[in-house]
Parts: sequence; C-alpha cells; structure tokens
Amino acid sequence: MKKYAEMTRSELELERAEVQAKYDELKAKKLSLNMARGKPGKAQLDMTSEMMDILKSDSDYMCDGIDVRNYGNLEGLPSCRALFAELLGVKPENVFCGGTASLQMMYDTIAKCYTHGRVNSDKPWAKLDKVKWLCPAPGYDRHFAISQSFGMEMITVPMTSEGPDMDLVEELIRDGDVRGMWCVPKYSNPDGIVYSAETIRRIASMKPAAKDFLLMWDNAYCVHEFFGDYLPFPDILGECAKYGNEDMVFEFASTSKITFPGAGVSVFACSEHNMEYVKKLLTVQVISYDKVNQLRHVRYLRDKAGVLALMKRHAAILGPKFRCVLDWLDREIAPRGIAQWQKPNGGYFVSVNTMPGIAKETWRLCKEAGLTMTGAGATFPYGRDPKDSNMRVAPSLPPTEQLEQAMEVYCISMRLAALNKLLA
Amino acid sequence: MKKYAEMTRSELELERAEVQAKYDELKAKKLSLNMARGKPGKAQLDMTSEMMDILKSDSDYMCDGIDVRNYGNLEGLPSCRALFAELLGVKPENVFCGGTASLQMMYDTIAKCYTHGRVNSDKPWAKLDKVKWLCPAPGYDRHFAISQSFGMEMITVPMTSEGPDMDLVEELIRDGDVRGMWCVPKYSNPDGIVYSAETIRRIASMKPAAKDFLLMWDNAYCVHEFFGDYLPFPDILGECAKYGNEDMVFEFASTSKITFPGAGVSVFACSEHNMEYVKKLLTVQVISYDKVNQLRHVRYLRDKAGVLALMKRHAAILGPKFRCVLDWLDREIAPRGIAQWQKPNGGYFVSVNTMPGIAKETWRLCKEAGLTMTGAGATFPYGRDPKDSNMRVAPSLPPTEQLEQAMEVYCISMRLAALNKLLA
Repeated sequence: MKKYAEMTRSELELERAEVQAKYDELKAKKLSLNMARGKPGKAQLDMTSEMMDILKSDSDYMCDGIDVRNYGNLEGLPSCRALFAELLGVKPENVFCGGTASLQMMYDTIAKCYTHGRVNSDKPWAKLDKVKWLCPAPGYDRHFAISQSFGMEMITVPMTSEGPDMDLVEELIRDGDVRGMWCVPKYSNPDGIVYSAETIRRIASMKPAAKDFLLMWDNAYCVHEFFGDYLPFPDILGECAKYGNEDMVFEFASTSKITFPGAGVSVFACSEHNMEYVKKLLTVQVISYDKVNQLRHVRYLRDKAGVLALMKRHAAILGPKFRCVLDWLDREIAPRGIAQWQKPNGGYFVSVNTMPGIAKETWRLCKEAGLTMTGAGATFPYGRDPKDSNMRVAPSLPPTEQLEQAMEVYCISMRLAALNKLLA
Repeated sequence: MKKYAEMTRSELELERAEVQAKYDELKAKKLSLNMARGKPGKAQLDMTSEMMDILKSDSDYMCDGIDVRNYGNLEGLPSCRALFAELLGVKPENVFCGGTASLQMMYDTIAKCYTHGRVNSDKPWAKLDKVKWLCPAPGYDRHFAISQSFGMEMITVPMTSEGPDMDLVEELIRDGDVRGMWCVPKYSNPDGIVYSAETIRRIASMKPAAKDFLLMWDNAYCVHEFFGDYLPFPDILGECAKYGNEDMVFEFASTSKITFPGAGVSVFACSEHNMEYVKKLLTVQVISYDKVNQLRHVRYLRDKAGVLALMKRHAAILGPKFRCVLDWLDREIAPRGIAQWQKPNGGYFVSVNTMPGIAKETWRLCKEAGLTMTGAGATFPYGRDPKDSNMRVAPSLPPTEQLEQAMEVYCISMRLAALNKLLA
C-alpha cells in the first residue's frame, strides 16, 4: 500500500474511484452513528446503576452525624470531601463537593471573577478593559465556549507531547492582561497527553504579571485509564504551594465518567485562602448541594481503591473500543500517510491530525454518510483550526458493532477528502 | 391579664421580677433549640424517603425515550417539565428543570444580567453605574443577600395585607435605574401573605422605565398549604402576557419542601423569548442537570393531584406545629399587647411584629437561653429593620415537644425584652 503523497495522479484517480464507490455504498445504508461527544455507553451506565438504590432505610441517610436529606453543609458531606481528597492527593479541607456538573463549577468560578473578582483582585473583571486567556489547543471546546461567552480574548498555545508549550506560556504571562489558562493535565482533551513533571513544575512556578491570574486545572480524567494501570499524578495544589502560588489554582474533577454523566458529584479543590473567599460568595448562591447523591457516591465508591477497582471495570468496556479506533486508523489511515494521532492510555478521546485542509471536508462527508463527529475546528479557540486538521474521535458511546461501522465511515470519508484535495 | 401598655410602673416591675425568674429557670435548663430556618423536620424526610429507591432496574431509567443516566436535554426531562407546568399553570415549553436549588437558579439569573444582560438589555448590568432593586419587606433574607452581593441599591417596599404596597411600587418604577423586584407571591416569606388578585394585576401590568426590568417571582410555596385546602393561584406568565409584559418575569419553584431540601428539583418558568435566550447562555454553563433525580420525582409525584396529596401529608405534620406557635402567641403575647402577627394558612413561617425596639433584644435573650431564632432584622434589606420589630418564627424543624419548649422561651424572652424596654 502506497502513501497518497507518493502516488501519481492516475494512481490517485484510480484510488478515488474505488474509495468513492465504497463511500456511496456506505452512504446508501442510511446509517445513524455518533462519535461526537465523550458520553459513556449503556453498558457502563448499566454497570454503575447498582449505586442508585444503595440508600434504603431512614437510618441510611445519616453520615458524619448529618441527616443528608436536609439543608446544610455548603461545602459538602465530610466523607465525600475526604473521598475526593484521597483521589486528588489533597486535604479534605481543600475540597468543595458541589452539584452534578464540574462544568458548571468552572463556569461559576469564572463568572465570579467577573462579578466579584478573585480573592486578590483589585476589582471585578467586568470592570477591566480586557481579559486575555491562554488556551492550549487542541483543547476542550466547552472550556473555550466559556471564555468566549465572557468575551475573553483567547490566545492559542500549541500542545507538545509533554503538555502546553511552556516557553510560549512563560512569554505570554508577562502581559498583565493575561488572567488565566485552561488545562486538562492528565489525558488532555482531546489529545490524551499526560503533562510531564517538568511541564507541571513550570506551570506551578509561573510568575504571571497579573497577580490574580487563575489556573483552571480541569482534572477530568484523573483516574480514567483504559489501557494499563492507574498512573499516579502530582497534586497541583501542593506543587503550586512550593512556589508560593497556592492561591493561583482551582482544580476540578467529577464522577461524570465514574458513575453517571451529569448525575454524579463534582468538586473543586483550592487553597484555604481561596476556600474561605469562595465560600463567602457561594453561601449567597446556594444553601447546600445534593448531599443525598454525595452519600450514594461515598457508600458506593468507598475510597480510592474502590474507585480504581470500578475504573478497571470501565476500562474493560472502554479499552476494546479504543483498541478498535486505533486498529482502524493503523490499518486504513497509517499506510496512506494522510493523518497522525496520539495513542492515549486514558481519557475519552483519540485526537487525529489529518493532512492540512481536509478536517472540515472529512466531517461533512461523515455527516452525509450518517456519522456525526465532533465539529472540525471545535478543539480550537473560536472554532478555528488554522490548519483545518484536528478531529476528535469519541468512541465511548456506540456499542462495538456500531463503532466498527462508524470507523469504516470515518476512514473512508477521510480518504475521500484527502483524494479530492490532492486531485483538486 | 392586662396589656403592658396599660400597666403602672410598679405593676410592670412586679411582672418583670416574675418573668425574669421564669427566664432564669428556662436558661438554667441549658436548652439547644432552633427555630431559625425553614427546614423540614425529620418526620417529613422519613415520609418522602420512599422516593429514593423508586428506580431499581436498568429499564427504569428510560423516560420519554431518553436514558436519564446520560448527558443531554439541557432544559430537563420532558415529563418533569410537564409536571411542573401543571403545578404552575403554564406550558411545558415555558419550564426549565434544573438542579436541586431554586436559590442557585435565582442567583444565576441575576448573575447573567450582570455578565451578559437580559434578552432586551442594552448592555450587561455590570456596565451600568447603578442598579436599584425593589425589596418588599419583611421579605426573604436570602433574596436580599443576593441583591447585596451584586451591589444593588435595595429599596424597601412595605408589605400590606394584599402584598407589596403597589402605589409606592408604581411610583418607584418610574426611575430607570430600578431594574427589578423580589416577590414571594403566595404565602410570602415571612408574612405568609397571599398577594391579592388586584396586586397581581397591578404587578403584571407595570410599565417600568427600565425596559429590561426583571420581576423575580419566587413561587416557593405554590402548593404549601398547612391549614385547609389547596388555594388556586394565578399564573404570573399568563397575567404578564395580558399586558405585553411576558418577557418581564421569571418564576421559580422547587420541591425542596415537597420532597427533599437541597436535594429536590428546582425549576424556572419564563416566556419563549426568554427561554431561547437563557438556553443559549446556559448551554455554555452546563451540559445537562440531574435527570435521574428529575425522573425519581416524576415517578413519585406523578402529577398535580399526586403533589397535592403529598402536601396534605406534609400538612398533617406541619399544621400542628403552626397551631402550637399560634396558640402560644395567642395565649402568652396577645393579652399583653406587645406584638402582632399574621395567621397564615401556608408557607413555612409566622411573622411576628413586636412593639418597636425589642426584636434584637428578644433575639439575644432567646439565644442566651439556648434558642436560635432567625436574626432580627434579617427580613429587611441590609439586615436593618427600621422599627427593630419583625421576627421570623420557623417552627418546621423541631419535633413538637421541643417546639413547645422553644415557644415558651420565645414568649418569655419577648416579654422580658418588652418589660426592660418599658422600664428603661
């Protein structure tokens, strides 16, 4: 099998005729497939549903001397704070257990910067002329959407195999208008890159010109290995504290991909100083979060060992799906030399970089053949991928037989887009 | 028994000696009682806990063709929207079902005014020099805390027996800086007043100078009768629409006092125009709310009839508690003429207006004798009751035997405060 770049024009034309025929054949099947979002599949949901009726009798609702069914304990159930503290390697008093969505916590953290300012801000950010924000990309589209919604000026920072390009970051934070940065440090969305120890050290020791710079550390995949064993990972609060930066960072996590998407428990972790400040603001916003659901999680997950055991069961479902995606890419795309990709051990995505200029067209062809993919460009600020190259593959939702078909459509669509481009 | 105002000085002194002795006796018991917050009692929580294991098998999680355990349906589960639509007398498409706290929804609605503006705002409120806000008082302290947190200039509007003083409201809204108003229209917090049809008509037909005026309609006690039958109540969306004001209002409700405080389902209702606008903002903030909990509520409550039947069971627990409070006041306070109060048929409070100048001292005496009451003044903007007179009694949490004791402490403390004042 030849790389497309090495084919003659007539060879490309022959290949196109063949690929087009195969594409038309797939399209005729009127498929309805979806690899757009990191949604767990039904097998995962069925597996964890055993948590749902774990609370049965009236006495089950007592925990830490608290009746979890009533108002109170803004910062969350102590046992739940302890569970997440163990997971994240921080102290329970640094953990705030909230509702069901870490995205909402992140949004609210940013919103409060605008309406009230940070613990050490001179004024609310709404009163600033400009807020610039560092966006390692490819990154998580919902992070960028938050930044955009608040009118931030997003600055793209390229990802390296060790995390964000720190030379560039260290340069950019000299600008006092740069107020923060998004990070998904372990199994980054979408690349699945694990930030290296050196990258983390450089992030934790940053000296931004803006004294109220906010490091948004979205540890969404902190225990989410699908190949191999749990990978220990530094606690960013402790790392930042080493350099006097303990107030710079908010860390986020949730059980959306441990128990239930949008119905789990979300948390943030921060310094005592930050905690005191945000609790004063939060007590105006909410009396207390759903401690019943927090208790369900405590009883079901128990501790870090319990979580890691459950994640092994998720991996048994997810691993084969990721294997399927990587096998298709290795078999169908690699020999043709039209894309490259990371081979992650955890997270929820495979990030594919096609030859420049064909991501959008590949997306369109997939769509036309009944396969919904994450929008091409979505992984970049403002939805603009300068190379029109990055595509996020999310294989978790479809059952395996559908996934095989989806990957067939995806690979054929990419090949057709590449051939059309090369022959244009 | 004589009214204190009619007693001679020596009679008052005799009375004080007697009351002081009784107070000291109570204080010596080292009680720990709480009538501070509208928290349901354990008997209510035990009663509704039957909801918690209503979802058992994997197939139970399917509703409206949706697997409630996964991401999706930002605006809530259709069946849950329909349930609240029936409760509030609106259409399901006007209802947004969210997380567990209507307070958070209210806060977020205000926060978005500041960061993004309303659907018809010229600019975000954070860019305005001044935001003034109408606060019918006595009112809900947490409403006022939100206004204060955002730096609003709160304007107190006195309550009448039919709701806010509308002559004054109609005068105040001519000021273009007045951007909104808090209302608890049915069984107002704390007075338990039901806004009259005429008050509601005048509110719905307001023509505020500020075109983006926001009516915050906190229908917290929409089905919360503890004496007598369910009282039908106008749908504020429809009322406002009659006068072309459909975009002026957001209505809020929750099941915090139907199922579980802080672990129920909260909703807002608004016009289609508002819904479209806020959904665009909300989709950035959250993927979807806890539909599992929404489904639990749908399966348990079923429909309005189901809710009203459950509220009758709550009333059977709450009614005697309110009867106890009113009996104590009638027996111990009324004859002495040192306070007046509403006699509500629903809600969670009894609002007591003492003779001027003794609410804070009564609170202090209660505290010293082991009884925590809502802070005196808390029911007014900035916590400042100009007459130092209003006190909110919240009898729902203590079991009846504790409530008897709490009311004894409360009445004795008020009598002592009155006597000290009259003899000063």
